[in-house]
Amino acid sequence: MIGIKSIASYIPAGRIDNIAQAASFDRDEAFVQAKIGTATLSVKDASEDTSDLCAAAVRNLLAKNPELRLEDVQALIVVTQNGDGEGLPHTSAIAQHKIGLPTSVACFDVSLGCSGYVYGLYAIKGFMEAAGLKNGILVTCDPYSKIMDRSDRMTTLLFGDAATATWIGEDPLWELGPARFGTDGSGADHLIVRDGCFHMNGRQVFNFASLKIIPHMQEVLEEAGLSLDSVDAYCLHQGSGAIVDAIAKRLGENGDRVVKDMCGAGNTVSSTIPLLMERYAFEGSAWQNLVMSGFGVGLSWGSAVLFRRG
Amino acid sequence: MIGIKSIASYIPAGRIDNIAQAASFDRDEAFVQAKIGTATLSVKDASEDTSDLCAAAVRNLLAKNPELRLEDVQALIVVTQNGDGEGLPHTSAIAQHKIGLPTSVACFDVSLGCSGYVYGLYAIKGFMEAAGLKNGILVTCDPYSKIMDRSDRMTTLLFGDAATATWIGEDPLWELGPARFGTDGSGADHLIVRDGCFHMNGRQVFNFASLKIIPHMQEVLEEAGLSLDSVDAYCLHQGSGAIVDAIAKRLGENGDRVVKDMCGAGNTVSSTIPLLMERYAFEGSAWQNLVMSGFGVGLSWGSAVLFRRG
Repeated sequence: MIGIKSIASYIPAGRIDNIAQAASFDRDEAFVQAKIGTATLSVKDASEDTSDLCAAAVRNLLAKNPELRLEDVQALIVVTQNGDGEGLPHTSAIAQHKIGLPTSVACFDVSLGCSGYVYGLYAIKGFMEAAGLKNGILVTCDPYSKIMDRSDRMTTLLFGDAATATWIGEDPLWELGPARFGTDGSGADHLIVRDGCFHMNGRQVFNFASLKIIPHMQEVLEEAGLSLDSVDAYCLHQGSGAIVDAIAKRLGENGDRVVKDMCGAGNTVSSTIPLLMERYAFEGSAWQNLVMSGFGVGLSWGSAVLFRRG
Repeated sequence: MIGIKSIASYIPAGRIDNIAQAASFDRDEAFVQAKIGTATLSVKDASEDTSDLCAAAVRNLLAKNPELRLEDVQALIVVTQNGDGEGLPHTSAIAQHKIGLPTSVACFDVSLGCSGYVYGLYAIKGFMEAAGLKNGILVTCDPYSKIMDRSDRMTTLLFGDAATATWIGEDPLWELGPARFGTDGSGADHLIVRDGCFHMNGRQVFNFASLKIIPHMQEVLEEAGLSLDSVDAYCLHQGSGAIVDAIAKRLGENGDRVVKDMCGAGNTVSSTIPLLMERYAFEGSAWQNLVMSGFGVGLSWGSAVLFRRG
């Protein structure tokens, strides 16, 4: 049985002062803290491409796990919608070469946004099992600074750049349990790139997430034999402070187990959930289970229950 | 055990006369027949977007298999590097809505080129098994007409537009056996889009494929307990007539079981292998096994052995 053995990340050093940025839109610090959820946003250097962030996260994963050698890696899947260049070839191939992985590695990109980590976990686990592979790395990296219109208050205050790398292999610390997915392309226009700039209908996305996610988590918890009461941690996509708070509020007493942390980076798209797990689900963690839910671009959503086995 | 139950396709009605096109580059019909391999290329109408081709292929699959109802489809994976718009959102979400699939469907795009069908089969099978899903559809659709420079003799004579849809479910006709994959990002520049136009270093790609593919197929055949002699059919990516002939020649006596057919469409990227299977691996086929191999953009390659079970 394969599952999650370790998670590492790379958050670029560049920082945007979100309090100052908000002031330029006549929004005060209280707004930033309450609605956005982070006083700083991470931003990659112009010299860094998506594959560089991916490679940095993988190197951090390898440094953290010296028993995982380059030559043992058999699969590299990159979740992104903002890859290198113009998307052909795929970013995972470019990253393979930059990292120095063997040419026997299976690489592909998965195009998904904020639901991407949940989908990506089941895609890489399933692909590896179907192809008989033992060790793989799932990377999330969707640098929205490439598509940000800095004059658009709806988006420029929210998104940050990051990459994460998850080692999938045998004897995992976290086992993947039941999962559920969903897609509603009638909402495709609510989160979309046009003429190189990202546009978001924030109200539509907020309403979708605040209504859809709890029932969706309940479905998957039921399949796992758990209830909302028996969850140790809710690892939700950190879309904004406001959406995480809204879901926590709807959870009532269980809301105190909703993890809220934008890691000083902002909404890093498919990287927010693995960043939470890296911080809170390994060393020193008492969690025996967790439910994760990602939601956004597509519209697309995914929820899964994970069990601690290590 | 899930595998391939059925394959359908959609080849747009538009045709480019490749003999006439070649004449404009001072190449004669003999060159077209021997090196390119097709006298016509399919081309989508300007009004059709990638998701429209995907939806048409899925509708043809549903028409061919009335027992597969829309509401039974739980996963839709689209292999493309030329999706709708600017790639965000993913094309599979837009196709979900156009087809009318339920919102409970799991959708994502896989970014891969000519190796995409082989990878995609193991990605969808694995994802479905990991997530406990029973019926899914793998779509290939990479309309290179979007990125073609019609003044570039190296590419404009080769590529055509098509979409295919493969039903993955229980009691399959074709079971997926062993598979092997590979990636060499040091060759990323050999097939690349820059400033909206596709560029190919034909000699490098030809050399890579003619040297790499037979040993790669041998590896996977060995794992399957087969030899080059015991293969019923070689379903190779139809990159060009010349590359298919070169591999067939290297196979010696076994080369007569190499399937060669560009289906009047040209090199349709990830669609060439499923187009071959649709034509030759179902009704009336005597094949009990086949080996498939896709190779191209990345560089990336994948080979797999399939066994007839139905």
